[in-house]
Amino acid sequence: MKCLSCKKEGEIRVEVGSFCKECFIRYYERKVERIVKKFKMIVPGDRVLVAVSGGKDSSSCLFLLSKLKKKIGFELEALYIDLGMEECTNPRTEAIVKKLCRQLEVKLNILRMKEIVEKGIKEVARERRRPVCSVCGVVKRYLMNKYTREWGFNKLATGHNADDIVRFFFKNWLSGNLEWIAKLKPIVPSTHPKLVTRIRPLFECTEKENYAYASIRGFHFVSCTRCSYMLRKDKWREILEFIEKKRRGFKISFVKNLEKLEMRIPEKKLRECEVCGEPTNLKICSFCKMFRQGGKG
Amino acid sequence: MKCLSCKKEGEIRVEVGSFCKECFIRYYERKVERIVKKFKMIVPGDRVLVAVSGGKDSSSCLFLLSKLKKKIGFELEALYIDLGMEECTNPRTEAIVKKLCRQLEVKLNILRMKEIVEKGIKEVARERRRPVCSVCGVVKRYLMNKYTREWGFNKLATGHNADDIVRFFFKNWLSGNLEWIAKLKPIVPSTHPKLVTRIRPLFECTEKENYAYASIRGFHFVSCTRCSYMLRKDKWREILEFIEKKRRGFKISFVKNLEKLEMRIPEKKLRECEVCGEPTNLKICSFCKMFRQGGKG
Repeated sequence: MKCLSCKKEGEIRVEVGSFCKECFIRYYERKVERIVKKFKMIVPGDRVLVAVSGGKDSSSCLFLLSKLKKKIGFELEALYIDLGMEECTNPRTEAIVKKLCRQLEVKLNILRMKEIVEKGIKEVARERRRPVCSVCGVVKRYLMNKYTREWGFNKLATGHNADDIVRFFFKNWLSGNLEWIAKLKPIVPSTHPKLVTRIRPLFECTEKENYAYASIRGFHFVSCTRCSYMLRKDKWREILEFIEKKRRGFKISFVKNLEKLEMRIPEKKLRECEVCGEPTNLKICSFCKMFRQGGKG
Repeated sequence: MKCLSCKKEGEIRVEVGSFCKECFIRYYERKVERIVKKFKMIVPGDRVLVAVSGGKDSSSCLFLLSKLKKKIGFELEALYIDLGMEECTNPRTEAIVKKLCRQLEVKLNILRMKEIVEKGIKEVARERRRPVCSVCGVVKRYLMNKYTREWGFNKLATGHNADDIVRFFFKNWLSGNLEWIAKLKPIVPSTHPKLVTRIRPLFECTEKENYAYASIRGFHFVSCTRCSYMLRKDKWREILEFIEKKRRGFKISFVKNLEKLEMRIPEKKLRECEVCGEPTNLKICSFCKMFRQGGKG
């Protein structure tokens, strides 16, 4: 297969077709820059914190934002959360993140679950009979929002890719979580003084594209960014591959139309958690219920 | 597999599981009656016209509405459109429709394309280089709305099933037709004095369920309700089968959540076609452009 742009020999094969390495880099970086500008994700003077895990998605996100930093004119730092679970965060992932940040001259901030709360994620999952991934999701959302704000950043960037977004869409759709679907956007503006604006620069990039980008750019990344729990149960990965095979370009086309979807959702009034003061629509936020109330509540 | 309800031997296998014949009929009829009431699709005093094609879906729809007729208290007649294309409408399909209407004591109204316009659907499709199915869609929507209203009915019922709805969803989503998605509802209320309210009593019933119902009830129906054109191109049928296999109950769950989706869509102002006076958002409606302007316009 020839390169889609220059017709030279194609070396990189992604969903939309083949590219030579140079053209792929151009295609990919332009795509991200375009979406960042289109949705005014980052404007001059912003202070952006990128959540990194050591995987290809968040590493590509960090790499790209560090390239855009001077062009747009904003401040950039990284956040790594040590979840205290070997499968997801370990000395290897941490070393990879540290190396990339050093290379890009981006300050890295590390949060360690063990230093924040006494209980571990697995312990809470066992206590509450909830999947580890759901507890982990609560933890990450909570810590990312709290520290982004407390450290004086106004935006939190994550490496969510098009595959993630389409999967989230289906899972939340089928569970009837339409309010969550309304938030599947490249930018989710703050709706409460304590809630930071979240941005997803890789919203239109597929997993395969991020993998290709990270590989060509030559930075190290861990091959499995998701914990084993999630992978095992996730049939949607297989389903999306099947759809993509039958209907080329499905994923990218799907997220582009998701950008246009405007839903009428009754606003849920956010208030402050009675224990920690973080924004929540409950009396006591999920994080405090799980980690600060002895497993009850 | 045992019957889901009574644990006797299962005879009918549909997406949600197996049923014996009696329990399936109860499950199916209750489901339709529930959705009709939930969305106030039909209220006492309504005059409802059902569009029938001779296929399992519209025949089941007619059968069920004729059962609900006395219970709710509304008037019911049927409409059959002879499209002038052998593949879709022919003496056999017409005979089947006539027989069912006689059996149910429902008055049948027949419209013949040839008596309304001089050109045929295929001729127009060739002239305009459009797929036959898209021209056919324009024709059906136009004639169904016009005659439902002119004959004094206030509601038009169609046999669209959950499979249709999910397929429409994906196709329109990927083409960016979000306004069409906003109309994928069990009831689409009129937004113009000349536009009739459309209802879809089988919104939550799958193709398989309609097939099973029509078979048990023992009325004749044509096995292929869709023209050969559509079937050939439709990869979504295969995709939905795959998803359903991996994720049992996907289709029904999907349409149920679609019922809850409320979109913010800028209202398109409807006006009246300058040629025929039917509602349209164009100067001249698609039907007139196609069939009354010598292929131009």
